[in-house]
Amino acid sequence: MSLTHFDASGQAHMVDVSDKPETARTAVAEGLVVMSPETLALAKGGAKKGDVLGVARLAGIMGAKRTSDLIPLCHPLPITKVAVELEPDDALPGIRITATVSTTGRTGVEMEALTAVSTACLTVYDMLKAAQKDMRIEGIRLISKTGGKSGDFKAE
Amino acid sequence: MSLTHFDASGQAHMVDVSDKPETARTAVAEGLVVMSPETLALAKGGAKKGDVLGVARLAGIMGAKRTSDLIPLCHPLPITKVAVELEPDDALPGIRITATVSTTGRTGVEMEALTAVSTACLTVYDMLKAAQKDMRIEGIRLISKTGGKSGDFKAE
Amino acid sequence: MSLTHFDASGQAHMVDVSDKPETARTAVAEGLVVMSPETLALAKGGAKKGDVLGVARLAGIMGAKRTSDLIPLCHPLPITKVAVELEPDDALPGIRITATVSTTGRTGVEMEALTAVSTACLTVYDMLKAAQKDMRIEGIRLISKTGGKSGDFKAE
Amino acid sequence: MSLTHFDASGQAHMVDVSDKPETARTAVAEGLVVMSPETLALAKGGAKKGDVLGVARLAGIMGAKRTSDLIPLCHPLPITKVAVELEPDDALPGIRITATVSTTGRTGVEMEALTAVSTACLTVYDMLKAAQKDMRIEGIRLISKTGGKSGDFKAE
Amino acid sequence: MSLTHFDASGQAHMVDVSDKPETARTAVAEGLVVMSPETLALAKGGAKKGDVLGVARLAGIMGAKRTSDLIPLCHPLPITKVAVELEPDDALPGIRITATVSTTGRTGVEMEALTAVSTACLTVYDMLKAAQKDMRIEGIRLISKTGGKSGDFKAE
Amino acid sequence: MSLTHFDASGQAHMVDVSDKPETARTAVAEGLVVMSPETLALAKGGAKKGDVLGVARLAGIMGAKRTSDLIPLCHPLPITKVAVELEPDDALPGIRITATVSTTGRTGVEMEALTAVSTACLTVYDMLKAAQKDMRIEGIRLISKTGGKSGDFKAE
Repeated sequence: MSLTHFDASGQAHMVDVSDKPETARTAVAEGLVVMSPETLALAKGGAKKGDVLGVARLAGIMGAKRTSDLIPLCHPLPITKVAVELEPDDALPGIRITATVSTTGRTGVEMEALTAVSTACLTVYDMLKAAQKDMRIEGIRLISKTGGKSGDFKAE
Repeated sequence: MSLTHFDASGQAHMVDVSDKPETARTAVAEGLVVMSPETLALAKGGAKKGDVLGVARLAGIMGAKRTSDLIPLCHPLPITKVAVELEPDDALPGIRITATVSTTGRTGVEMEALTAVSTACLTVYDMLKAAQKDMRIEGIRLISKTGGKSGDFKAE
Repeated sequence: MSLTHFDASGQAHMVDVSDKPETARTAVAEGLVVMSPETLALAKGGAKKGDVLGVARLAGIMGAKRTSDLIPLCHPLPITKVAVELEPDDALPGIRITATVSTTGRTGVEMEALTAVSTACLTVYDMLKAAQKDMRIEGIRLISKTGGKSGDFKAE
Repeated sequence: MSLTHFDASGQAHMVDVSDKPETARTAVAEGLVVMSPETLALAKGGAKKGDVLGVARLAGIMGAKRTSDLIPLCHPLPITKVAVELEPDDALPGIRITATVSTTGRTGVEMEALTAVSTACLTVYDMLKAAQKDMRIEGIRLISKTGGKSGDFKAE
Repeated sequence: MSLTHFDASGQAHMVDVSDKPETARTAVAEGLVVMSPETLALAKGGAKKGDVLGVARLAGIMGAKRTSDLIPLCHPLPITKVAVELEPDDALPGIRITATVSTTGRTGVEMEALTAVSTACLTVYDMLKAAQKDMRIEGIRLISKTGGKSGDFKAE
Repeated sequence: MSLTHFDASGQAHMVDVSDKPETARTAVAEGLVVMSPETLALAKGGAKKGDVLGVARLAGIMGAKRTSDLIPLCHPLPITKVAVELEPDDALPGIRITATVSTTGRTGVEMEALTAVSTACLTVYDMLKAAQKDMRIEGIRLISKTGGKSGDFKAE
C-alpha cells in the first residue's frame, strides 16, 4: 500500500481532487481531557466562576476553520457546519468533547473535526492549568464519517 | 480557588502579565499516535515511500508559532526554540511525539509545546488515515516546565 | 424568538447551511470616520503627502478576506468581489466609507461588507492618529443585501 | 504637519521605532452597538438562550491579537493584557463595549484596543442580525492612553 | 489598455468574478535558487544531513494556501491540487523549483503557483543562508496556464 | 559544514536563540520584475490609472509581517521598521524593488526583507498580468545586513 499524500517518488503533495464531485460530507470526532475531581469541579463552575466550556467550544469552532493552515497537506474546504459539545463526565473524571463538521466539497472533513476537538481540548487545558498541570488529553479519534467515494466509517 | 483566565465576575480575559519579568522558560510536552503494526510500518517507510515523520515534525514546529492564534486567552510570545521529535515505538504500536519550546518572556510556553505536539499528532493522522481510520491520539500531556514564578514542574 | 447562532440548549455553533443552495449574494455596508477639518485636509493630502485613502481601501479589501478568521461563527465563503469606496465629506467633516462584497455561496456576505468597512475605518484612524486622537468611527451599518432565502434588505 | 506613516516623498512605510525604549503602555477604547429594546432583550438572554456577550468578548480578545495582520502599517507587539467589557445599556438601547490593552513595547496599543472593540461590535452584530438588520455600530473611539513619548491622552 | 485590478477612476478593487463559470484551471510556475557548487552539495546532503528540499517543498505547498492572504487583490480559491518539485541542477549551479496548482473556480491559479514557487525559493535560501549569503532567486515566471476565458498560455 | 536548521541527526528544528542577546539588526534586500516597455508604461500609469506601485508597496510591508508564518523554521520577531521602495527602471525595463527591515531581536531580519521583496514582486505581477503573462521576477538577493554575532554582510 502507498500513502496518497506522497507521489510515486515519495515526495509530499496536496493530492489532486479536481475530478472528484462535490458531495455532502460529515465527520464526527471525539476527545477527552482527563483531570482530578477537584479540577473538574472548577471546570463546571458556571457563569459566575467563568465559562470554561463556552470558551473551549468557541476555540474548537474557530480551530476547525484553521485546519488547512495547520495541517500541511489538507485542502481548504468551505465548511458549512461546526458544532462542538463539551460534556463533564464524573466517571473519567474529565470533559468529553465531540465535534461535528460538515461540508459540501471534494474531500472529507475528518481533519476539520479532529482539529476542532484538539483545539477545544488544548483550550480546556489552558483554562485549567493553573489548577492542575498533569491533566492529560486522551482518546482523540474519528467517530464517524459519511459521504465521499471511500465509503462511510463508524468507530466500533 | 479561582481560575486566572477569568476576572472576579467570571468574565474571560487575557490575564495581565505586564509586571512580570522576562525570564528564560522552557516547556516539554508529549503525545502518542496509536496505530496498527501495519500502519506503523507505512509510517516508517523512509524517504522512498514518503517522509511521514518529517512532514509531521515541520507541522508541529509551525503549529507552535500559531498557538496564540488558536488558544483564545494565550499571550503572543517570541518563541526562541522549537524542537519536535517523532519516535516510532513498536510496543505501542505507534509514534511517540515530544516537543520542546523555549522563550524569554513574561509567561510560560506550556501551550506552545502542547500545540506543537497536537499539530504533529494530527498531521501523522492525516498522512496515514487512508490506511487506518481508527488510529487514536493519546496521552498528550506536559512533561516538564522550567522558569517563571510558579516554579518548575516535572511529570511523574 | 431564538438566535440562529445558538442551539436549543443555548450553546454557540456554526449553523448548518449544508442544505442551502449556492446563490448569488451581495451586501453593501457603510461607516464614517469623523474628524476635524484640519485632519480631513491631511487625509485628502494627495499622493505627495501620502495616500491615506488608498492604504485604507486596500486594508478594507484584505479585511473582507479575514472575516471568518475574526468573527467566531461566520462561515468561510469564496468572495467573488470586494470594492471599498472612501469619500471625504466636508460636511461631517470626515470620511465616508462604503464596501460592496459579493459571493456565490450558501450564506450572505453582510459580515464581510461590515468587516471591510470596519477595517478601513480603523486604518484611517491609524494613519491620522498622530494628528488627532479624538476621531470617532460612527454609523457602521448594513445598507443593503440581496440574495438568499431571508429576502432582500434595504436600509431606510 | 506631515503624517508619520508616510516618508518625505509620500510613500507609506512602517515607521522606524527601533530607537524607542520599551515602556509600559495601556490604551482603552470604547464602542456601542445600538439596537431595538427587543433585540437588546435577546442579547441579554443569558446562558440558556445563548451567551451573546461571552462570544463577543472572546472575539474581541482574539481580535486584539490580529491587529498587526489587519492594519497595514501597525507594528507587531507582544500584548501583555486584554480585557473586554460588554455592558447592556437600556438607555441606548444597546451594548457598550470597552477594551483595555497593555504591552511593554516600543509603540502604543491604541490600535489593538480599537480593533478589540471593533471585532466585538461586529460579533454582536453577527449574533443578533437574524433579529434586527438595522443595528448600528457607533462611537468607536479612544478613551485613554498612557505611556510613550507622545504623552498621555484622555478623552473629554 | 486598462488594468482589471483598478476601476474606472483608478481605485484598486477585487474584480467581480461572480458571473464567471466555475471551470477547471491549472497553472505551472518555475523559479531558481542560484548558489555555489559547495552550497548545492549541502542542499543535496540527504536525510542524514537534513532534508532541505523536503522542507522547502512543504513550505511551497503551504504557501500556495496563503496566496489570497498575501496578494491584496487575489480572490480566495478552493485549491484542489498543489505539487512542488525541487531539482538540484549542477549546471546552474542551484535548485530548480516547479509548482503546479489546480482549482475548479472562477479565476485562475497563476498567483497560487507563483506564490508556491516564491515561498519554496525563500525557504531554500533560509535553510542555506548560514553557508552562503549571496545566493540569488532568479527566473520566477509562469510556465503555463489552462482553463478560463482568457485562453491558455504557454511560456516560450 | 553542517546546516544550523538541522540537528545532529538531520532533523529540522527552529534553532535555539534563547541565549543570544537582543541587538539592533537591519537587513536590505532587492528584487526586480522584468517586463516589456508597454507594461512598464502601464505600471507607471499614476493615480488616475491605478497605483500599481502603491499597492505592491503595501503588500510588501504586510508580507514582512507574515514571514514566520510562511518560512517554516523562521523565528517570530518584533519588527520595528519596514520600508519598501519601488522604482521603475526603463533600462531593464521593469521595476526595481528594495526592502529595508529592522528589529531589535535575537536573530536577523534577512528573511523578512526577502519576504517583503518577494511579496511586492508577486503583487506587481498580479496587478499587471492581464497585460503581460511572461514577466519574470529576477535577482532577489540580500543587499546588506548589520547586527548580530555573525557579522555584517554587504553584497558586492
